[in-house]
Amino acid sequence: MIIDVHGHYTTAPAALGLWRDRQIAALKDGTPMPRASELRISDDELRESIETNQLRRMRERGSDLTIFSPRASFMAHHIGDFEVSSTWAALCNELCFRVSQLFPEHFIGAAMLPQSPGVDPISCLTELERCVRDYGFVGINLNPDPSGGHWTSPPLTDRHWYPLYETMVEHAIPAMIHVSTSCNACFHTTGAHYLNADTTAFMQCLTGDLFKDFPTLRFLIPHGGGAVPYHWGRFRGLAQELKKPLLDEHLLNNIFFDTCVYHQPGIDLLTEVIPVKNVLFASEMIGAVRGVDPTTGHYYDDTRRYIEAADLTDEERHQIFEGNARRVFGRLDAHLRRKGL
Amino acid sequence: MIIDVHGHYTTAPAALGLWRDRQIAALKDGTPMPRASELRISDDELRESIETNQLRRMRERGSDLTIFSPRASFMAHHIGDFEVSSTWAALCNELCFRVSQLFPEHFIGAAMLPQSPGVDPISCLTELERCVRDYGFVGINLNPDPSGGHWTSPPLTDRHWYPLYETMVEHAIPAMIHVSTSCNACFHTTGAHYLNADTTAFMQCLTGDLFKDFPTLRFLIPHGGGAVPYHWGRFRGLAQELKKPLLDEHLLNNIFFDTCVYHQPGIDLLTEVIPVKNVLFASEMIGAVRGVDPTTGHYYDDTRRYIEAADLTDEERHQIFEGNARRVFGRLDAHLRRKGL
Repeated sequence: MIIDVHGHYTTAPAALGLWRDRQIAALKDGTPMPRASELRISDDELRESIETNQLRRMRERGSDLTIFSPRASFMAHHIGDFEVSSTWAALCNELCFRVSQLFPEHFIGAAMLPQSPGVDPISCLTELERCVRDYGFVGINLNPDPSGGHWTSPPLTDRHWYPLYETMVEHAIPAMIHVSTSCNACFHTTGAHYLNADTTAFMQCLTGDLFKDFPTLRFLIPHGGGAVPYHWGRFRGLAQELKKPLLDEHLLNNIFFDTCVYHQPGIDLLTEVIPVKNVLFASEMIGAVRGVDPTTGHYYDDTRRYIEAADLTDEERHQIFEGNARRVFGRLDAHLRRKGL
Repeated sequence: MIIDVHGHYTTAPAALGLWRDRQIAALKDGTPMPRASELRISDDELRESIETNQLRRMRERGSDLTIFSPRASFMAHHIGDFEVSSTWAALCNELCFRVSQLFPEHFIGAAMLPQSPGVDPISCLTELERCVRDYGFVGINLNPDPSGGHWTSPPLTDRHWYPLYETMVEHAIPAMIHVSTSCNACFHTTGAHYLNADTTAFMQCLTGDLFKDFPTLRFLIPHGGGAVPYHWGRFRGLAQELKKPLLDEHLLNNIFFDTCVYHQPGIDLLTEVIPVKNVLFASEMIGAVRGVDPTTGHYYDDTRRYIEAADLTDEERHQIFEGNARRVFGRLDAHLRRKGL
């Protein structure tokens, strides 16, 4: 089985974006917000948006199951207050749940949280628990910078985040550390902010001792870990100067990297430098980079090809494609076992 | 000849740091600032700080000449106003100049600029021109984020920076794009802020058309280009979606990467992915990562070893060690030619 641990609902029917536009306009004008019930999307519309996009590509590329969360750039936690984020997150999560119900073999949900800058993350627990309990979601996306590029929240190692971690551990739910749209003109969203956040999150964990407090907490760092594997020597050296244990021991029981790296040399480096047990297959399809690479004739984000071509044994490839995902996403494994898989 | 294009005076005598502490204390207390003339460091002290550190390592490792600039993390442009930065930059630049006079075979200067958040970069021109004219400096370090991790300046493609670029072009001076200490708790200075800035600067250039306005402007992106080479497929794909020319044409006549990547797989990727003409030898010794890699028994920042071991021809290695530096730093080449080198 090939499990893609990083897919977003980037192709939701236009009604979703129009509803959000109305919410933002109401916020701006001080007029009443649209109600959640005013968003109406039929099952047929959902089906079509998936069948002609993600599912078609999954079939073409031979991946079986995607951990599916709301569109990352649409989370935009910097817009409005907690109530605005809360209504918006609930709508987006519900759509991912409905997709997982329409295509139970191919999609399973991960939740967007109703984060809001300056608001205690404890406020996210209701939505998180609802998604786990009612929707069967197996993960969450945690935004380390709900301000959208101004980085006003404390580092991930701060006690600020601990209530969230306690709940994640209780439910065996890992977090993908994923920022959203940048509203800072310095940072292009997908070309700088995403990668910077990956690197930043890793270094926050390196300087701290978070996993001493939460030995079973698990973070997935997307986009191949930002700059981290390319600079693995730098990070090993910095850990050494900070008198931290070796990274294997200090971080690699808790931190994992996905394979959203869109060329062969990048995947070759990732799989050479990072232990195979810490690498999880993902493509972020349909996501930031949608075109065909003229140097290969294949989609940039067809990451399965790079894994197939990397210098790995069949057993290692199986770990990356399936085994590691089932180990890191414990509820996913339980779900598959219940289905006899 | 082996030219290291990225060295900072991280080992300056303690008097420099003490003077800076007094400046910062005066700023805090509202008492008179120390005068520049109160900093007294003898030639013998300078000599010792270099001979026992950078020069010793250069001899051990076989590099000949270092482009030498003030300590990056000490620039701290976020502290005080323009006057504070101006006095501080002048002191730091003068020390690098004196080192270049004491060891003319081994060091040549690059200037720190007296940047200050919210201040027009035109204010930096006097110091820049002084360093070029009086000190024979061959480059500058340009901080894209003088706020120190709050990213409050416009992107590098903004006209805000154009007066600086006009002067750089006029004097054939390239800029290394190098941030300083992070005063944002989210970003570890050398483990996150530096690498993020590298990625951010590249992406700013990718989205803009700066080099149409300044075809001979040259930026050196340090630390192996942050996350860029590892994600080269992503950047190629993003350029394609933004309808930009191929990166070779769009950016690689103007943007160069150094080799401050502290393990073999990283250097192998860099030299595989980025055209050799765009890669300049550097170590940032003595810098962010000072230890010995237990997996190799050699210093992490002994980057010459990685270049020697990379899959390159002798001619390619010569370009990386010397040729590219002379092409990019035009005044360095002129200086060496005057000496018959």
